[in-house]
Amino acid sequence: MTVSMNLGKDSYDIVIERGALGKIEDYIDLGKGKALIVTDSGVPAEYAKTVADRLSGSVFTFEQGEKSKNFDTYKAICEKLLELSFTRSDAVIAVGGGVCGDMAGFAAATYMRGIAFYNIPTTVLSQVDSSIGGKTAIDLGKIKNIVGAFYQPKKVIIDPDVLATLPERQIKNGLAESIKMGLCFDPELFGLFEKADYLDHIEKIIEASLKVKRYVVEQDEKEIGLRKVLNFGHTIGHAIEASVPFGELYHGECVALGMIPMCGESVRPRLVAALKNVGLPISFDYDREKIYSALCHDKKSVGKTVTAVRCNEVGSFVFEQTTPKKLIKLI
Amino acid sequence: MTVSMNLGKDSYDIVIERGALGKIEDYIDLGKGKALIVTDSGVPAEYAKTVADRLSGSVFTFEQGEKSKNFDTYKAICEKLLELSFTRSDAVIAVGGGVCGDMAGFAAATYMRGIAFYNIPTTVLSQVDSSIGGKTAIDLGKIKNIVGAFYQPKKVIIDPDVLATLPERQIKNGLAESIKMGLCFDPELFGLFEKADYLDHIEKIIEASLKVKRYVVEQDEKEIGLRKVLNFGHTIGHAIEASVPFGELYHGECVALGMIPMCGESVRPRLVAALKNVGLPISFDYDREKIYSALCHDKKSVGKTVTAVRCNEVGSFVFEQTTPKKLIKLI
Repeated sequence: MTVSMNLGKDSYDIVIERGALGKIEDYIDLGKGKALIVTDSGVPAEYAKTVADRLSGSVFTFEQGEKSKNFDTYKAICEKLLELSFTRSDAVIAVGGGVCGDMAGFAAATYMRGIAFYNIPTTVLSQVDSSIGGKTAIDLGKIKNIVGAFYQPKKVIIDPDVLATLPERQIKNGLAESIKMGLCFDPELFGLFEKADYLDHIEKIIEASLKVKRYVVEQDEKEIGLRKVLNFGHTIGHAIEASVPFGELYHGECVALGMIPMCGESVRPRLVAALKNVGLPISFDYDREKIYSALCHDKKSVGKTVTAVRCNEVGSFVFEQTTPKKLIKLI
Repeated sequence: MTVSMNLGKDSYDIVIERGALGKIEDYIDLGKGKALIVTDSGVPAEYAKTVADRLSGSVFTFEQGEKSKNFDTYKAICEKLLELSFTRSDAVIAVGGGVCGDMAGFAAATYMRGIAFYNIPTTVLSQVDSSIGGKTAIDLGKIKNIVGAFYQPKKVIIDPDVLATLPERQIKNGLAESIKMGLCFDPELFGLFEKADYLDHIEKIIEASLKVKRYVVEQDEKEIGLRKVLNFGHTIGHAIEASVPFGELYHGECVALGMIPMCGESVRPRLVAALKNVGLPISFDYDREKIYSALCHDKKSVGKTVTAVRCNEVGSFVFEQTTPKKLIKLI
């Protein structure tokens, strides 16, 4: 199936198709243009190889993990593009999770001030969320996604078959964002996570999540209004993520923990039960001082106040101006 | 006077005003927002200090010259913004020449995916040309401006008084771009450079050049068509610049040298005479092999052909598809 993102001249299609990787030339036509496939060591190497072989592209592989999402790797991708004499007729193709897509996308957004970018997300998290919306970025110091660009891909190709090779923890990690989208927009989607057999509905989960994300991004491409709702659970979640050593908690696990304090009394027990059902964490040995310090540096803070998102009823949300001090008390 | 750039929601004003620096708060209103003034060691320090004092801003100074226009300095500016806890309510202000504006602009374009950017150009080159148009960038290896973004400033403030402290060679360097704009668009502007007293007309030169640049940028903000005319003299010019040690030739000197072979028979003698009059070079001990190699890497090349601009009559231009091989023969 194809979900179309309507963003004026930056519109593009999201294709969801089992086995798409093995016939990628049906979805990506570069004409005489060259392709650099950017992937990381955590992604089965045959995925990037399949794409590279079918599009006569080159492969750039960086070490997996958030720690690689930095200026050095960004620069290395740009150097590779330069070494291969890439021009504005050529393309960058990400094959990997969110880190890979964010970084390859930022390189594509800025190399020659922008060349074509295609995204082939291979994790649940990136398939349901991060691969669409056009937010590209790298980290700096301990602050995630602080340097980047809004840059839309030419196409996103989602092959659910690739999820088969993912570890269970990775899958659950990705589902946290879907739970978030269900909580704030789609009670039916949220309801799936309250069922024991939720994993049988993975394609429905991907599709419903993409449609929520599409709705929000189309309303607010540059994140000046509504789109901030997608930060639900992220203000505290990012701070938790920054307070622990890289990799100790996955992004989705931090979002799960970050959503709980932002729910109203009637929603919280349902969320906690759903998180338990999915196998996401519901509590953690918090380092409050580190979390507070990270909250104060969160890029979403404007001056000394922070725009946070609350969910007081499943399927709805409210924005709230608050402060790091008040937020830390909620945990 | 004020020249307005009409670019839809990215529109902005260019203010040309003697003494503007000393009353900068009349032109830049940040509300409660913070300001980082980015300057370099070649700019009289009092310029940045004046702006910082009047806007309660901080100053970031990097070492002058093209060699600083790299990932390291770009990263250092981002780190400074992070250290000062800059948010989307704050602003970056460049006080310097093209290198400074390009790099500060790229940092502003990408820090938090874009915060406000103001440009206060202090060289002829940046006042007549590079400060407007929204092209920000850094260099990589020997290739200039290969990584960057299209990002419009909130305002450009030009204070012609600051030119008084510039060395003569710097002034002439900047005028090459004005000569280019006169050649391709404005015979009257070009005619000024054929007069012995051309320097008495500096404000007229700035204004006329800005208006040509404005016309071209408004027609083609993202450089997909007409804007390539501004590359007149630059395809060969950039290659010459890449072929010599950093700083041996100034950018404008390379553009001057790069324009000569791209003129028709009737125009070339007039251009050479004007360049002589202004004191710009008309010949050089070329290293053809290095120039050829740089031409092949020029970011404007599409596959194996290059879009070059020719001037066969003063005030006009034509686009021409050519190859590095043909270009090198013209020198």
